Amino acid sequence: MNEKELIQTLIAKLPRNQNTILGPGDDCAVVCPPSEGESLLLKTDAIVESVHFSRDDRPELVGRKALARCLSDVAAMGGVPDSALITVGFPEGGDEIYLEKVYDGAAALAEEFDVAIVGGEMTRSPGGLMLSVSLTGRVARDGEVRRSGAKVGDAVLVSGSLGGSRSGHHLEFVPRLREARWLVENFEIRSMIDVSDGLASDLGHITRESKVGALIDEAYLPISRAAKLRSRENEGAKTPLLAALTDGEDFELLFTISPRSAVKLKDSWRKTFPEVPLSVIGRIETELGLRLKQATGIRSLGGVDGFDHFQ
Amino acid sequence: MNEKELIQTLIAKLPRNQNTILGPGDDCAVVCPPSEGESLLLKTDAIVESVHFSRDDRPELVGRKALARCLSDVAAMGGVPDSALITVGFPEGGDEIYLEKVYDGAAALAEEFDVAIVGGEMTRSPGGLMLSVSLTGRVARDGEVRRSGAKVGDAVLVSGSLGGSRSGHHLEFVPRLREARWLVENFEIRSMIDVSDGLASDLGHITRESKVGALIDEAYLPISRAAKLRSRENEGAKTPLLAALTDGEDFELLFTISPRSAVKLKDSWRKTFPEVPLSVIGRIETELGLRLKQATGIRSLGGVDGFDHFQ
Repeated sequence: MNEKELIQTLIAKLPRNQNTILGPGDDCAVVCPPSEGESLLLKTDAIVESVHFSRDDRPELVGRKALARCLSDVAAMGGVPDSALITVGFPEGGDEIYLEKVYDGAAALAEEFDVAIVGGEMTRSPGGLMLSVSLTGRVARDGEVRRSGAKVGDAVLVSGSLGGSRSGHHLEFVPRLREARWLVENFEIRSMIDVSDGLASDLGHITRESKVGALIDEAYLPISRAAKLRSRENEGAKTPLLAALTDGEDFELLFTISPRSAVKLKDSWRKTFPEVPLSVIGRIETELGLRLKQATGIRSLGGVDGFDHFQ
Repeated sequence: MNEKELIQTLIAKLPRNQNTILGPGDDCAVVCPPSEGESLLLKTDAIVESVHFSRDDRPELVGRKALARCLSDVAAMGGVPDSALITVGFPEGGDEIYLEKVYDGAAALAEEFDVAIVGGEMTRSPGGLMLSVSLTGRVARDGEVRRSGAKVGDAVLVSGSLGGSRSGHHLEFVPRLREARWLVENFEIRSMIDVSDGLASDLGHITRESKVGALIDEAYLPISRAAKLRSRENEGAKTPLLAALTDGEDFELLFTISPRSAVKLKDSWRKTFPEVPLSVIGRIETELGLRLKQATGIRSLGGVDGFDHFQ
């Protein structure tokens, strides 16, 4: 298969949606924009072999992950994803069957969330395989949930469980699009982010942007089974607590809400998403920085910039 | 400078425009979408060290080129560019001053065309430096100029001159946004593409998508001074003709128009853009494939797929 045939094969399988006017094959893709009462969301994210995935990972899951990361970001704004572009940096002599499976994985996830893949590019990459995804989304005008909206007194909540993502979750997670839409449609979410760098770091983004601090209670942290297993099975591994705070790639929703609404939200969530844990893990405070409440007392997780000194 | 400081330095210099609601720093950028009567254009394009530029090129020009390529694609659709995202794959131990200059170059060109840079990403790159740009644009609903609209009898026109782009033009070209807007506002442009792969290949895209063929007249091909110089100065270099047909990265507008309008268009163009040559180089024909009219006769440039057999 030459490069032209390969591209034709790949393009033929890419999903469209109701907003696709012109897909791959011209100078630009053409799509229906969001309506007057909406804003356009834009996101780009790249994954690189040996950094974000390894050559041993299933190629379908690598392609899936590249798109899923962007979908998770649209979820964290409270938006609906729409159209994606995929750029592939392809090593000289790279395996075309592998690449086709990468696209298959991205396309399958796109269809699951009614996302069109309207274009992209293949280019030679002197390093390993690289995938860069750009994604558009839509959200009600002034309805995007930013990192900067946390208020003193807010409850801090997180979906799912944290830590040990590299054991498999980072390739297989389902972006929390449905949960995030449900949240913004039913509650006033003050601030939200997806946990990609690790809870401590990402909560630091919220507190820094909101000019507040936070106190997290270790007793309520939803530590994943994978983080516990890794800690038990590997001599030098992080403790489960440290893994939950710093591993990253959990792609869970971390958000804050008025404390008056927290109980009602937790009840409704349990009925709506019985399979997905939701934990109230702490509260927003006036004092800048992050603090962790442990059995032994309260410990600082870092300064104004969030997570600095823990490791 | 650590990575966080570097990113802050880079972000601070990125231009916004009147459509920017939320720039870099949250999970997604938020921008005003095109209005009801418009479509959204989407484009992504990547450049890779040692493939599209070399480490010796001025970094400002490398950043400029990464964005200019996408702008040229929006021009070729007849659109207006709006918001860009820039992803940088940054080699371990790469030079931060260099990277800052790359951003400076992209930002300066963005400002020139009122394009906002609303986000992006830095990631480690095991190979050399890599820049991937995603760009949105807007165009009147049903007003985008596609590759597929060429009609038998159409005149084939190209702006500027062709060949030898690697002598410098590929880093310094001005995307033909103004010219393309003027074209679509004043004439019925039937099909258009920007010359990135080379005239023969890109005209092949138009004829293939339009299910027609084309005859090009060598006598009217605007061969660049750089192509002629390179041919004269280097023993093994391409002939100027071959360079004009195949070098690529000219980023000129290649388009077709009803033959009745061609003369009027050429006259108006000369008055509006006196500095920019415009050449009628051939015509669209029923017979598929590309043909070159030379003093010695007519020669095939390839089959239905366009340019295949010339080299």
